[in-house]
Amino acid sequence: MSKLYEHGTLAALMAGNMAGTIAVGDLLKHGNTGIGTFDGLNGEVIILNGEVYQAVSDGHVNHVTERDAKMPFASVHFPDKPTPVTLQQVNFDLLNGQFVDDHQLANVFAFLKLSGHFEKVHTRIAPKQERPYPSLLEVAKGQPEFHRQDIDGTILGYYAPDVFGSITAAGWHLHFISDDRQFAGHLLGFSADQLKGDFEIFDTLEQHLPVEDQDYRQSKVDLQSLRAGIAAAEGSK
Amino acid sequence: MSKLYEHGTLAALMAGNMAGTIAVGDLLKHGNTGIGTFDGLNGEVIILNGEVYQAVSDGHVNHVTERDAKMPFASVHFPDKPTPVTLQQVNFDLLNGQFVDDHQLANVFAFLKLSGHFEKVHTRIAPKQERPYPSLLEVAKGQPEFHRQDIDGTILGYYAPDVFGSITAAGWHLHFISDDRQFAGHLLGFSADQLKGDFEIFDTLEQHLPVEDQDYRQSKVDLQSLRAGIAAAEGSK
Repeated sequence: MSKLYEHGTLAALMAGNMAGTIAVGDLLKHGNTGIGTFDGLNGEVIILNGEVYQAVSDGHVNHVTERDAKMPFASVHFPDKPTPVTLQQVNFDLLNGQFVDDHQLANVFAFLKLSGHFEKVHTRIAPKQERPYPSLLEVAKGQPEFHRQDIDGTILGYYAPDVFGSITAAGWHLHFISDDRQFAGHLLGFSADQLKGDFEIFDTLEQHLPVEDQDYRQSKVDLQSLRAGIAAAEGSK
Repeated sequence: MSKLYEHGTLAALMAGNMAGTIAVGDLLKHGNTGIGTFDGLNGEVIILNGEVYQAVSDGHVNHVTERDAKMPFASVHFPDKPTPVTLQQVNFDLLNGQFVDDHQLANVFAFLKLSGHFEKVHTRIAPKQERPYPSLLEVAKGQPEFHRQDIDGTILGYYAPDVFGSITAAGWHLHFISDDRQFAGHLLGFSADQLKGDFEIFDTLEQHLPVEDQDYRQSKVDLQSLRAGIAAAEGSK
């Protein structure tokens, strides 16, 4: 079984720690596939085969080749014997319901990647924030959303158990990127007749924390609002 | 920086998954120092220099040399350049307050080991449970407690940030073992004039989950009562 590597926590973003704390080059040592965001919560990141794509809030997609750029939050892994899967009539209801049940994902971390023709894709893209940083929840209230119809692409991301919902997004956290790499974002909704791809269950979460970062060390998290805040900021619809 | 390896979660124990899911021999590959419990929540485990001690609920301590015995929950690490520390007038108030503040531990995982002469030690020892397992919280209500005065020994264990309080014990989770290895347990309270030891901050939590265990895969956790339940079951006094 392979492991999921996560740098930073959504709890830290909720507390306004949005400065980048891991260089892309260092992150890629822990995986060539994954999702994340850049310094200042700048956009939505998709990592595929070691290539890094960043959707920014005006809607365009950067192919990031700089390896010094820093990220405050990212999840990556090296694929290891993923299980092939073909799904029909695919949307979040299917992924959240039957797919989780069929593969008993409720208490494990998992990865899912599905490609094909999407009838509808609904995304949002976090706009870059400046210091003093607001909370993730504040940012989530004013994010540009995008809709596309009839587009070929890939959704990918991770499933986390409910009990980890204070540090990462519980349930599915998926990003989309089109085959032509011109459209991407955090996935809020989608529908597709048929998608093919694979999934993988991890037995280990390697949770890396930015312990050298003074803002992180000193930050205070409001536990009362944390879980609901993460769900509101990162959840699918 | 070294990493803290944790097998299982307190959330799983809260849901009644108390069967052992990792062999001692496998656990020791990830650390020679740590704490945990055995199959069926059988006692309180202290691991020092690769030696495994188990305090059982009648109060005596076993030196466990079998490597096939299984544990449902354990935290271990290999010490890596720990920072020496000498503390005066030591008790939980000091560790929870000034010590956490002085070393900015609030948002990190850390290890602490302190040895010396204790004026008072107050422990409890979880009694072995049988199937069908109760919840951790039920077990915590009926655990034998022990008091000793003027005893030489060592306390050791881990600090976890509040946001991880749904999967492990937030704050300090410490066990005690006497120098003569005849008395040990989960630490509820203590006082000492002076203790010497060391502490270490981890930048990584390697969280291993028993994904091959069917009871774990199917278990349902009550999120509403989880955090308070873990605090009640594992907290210090």
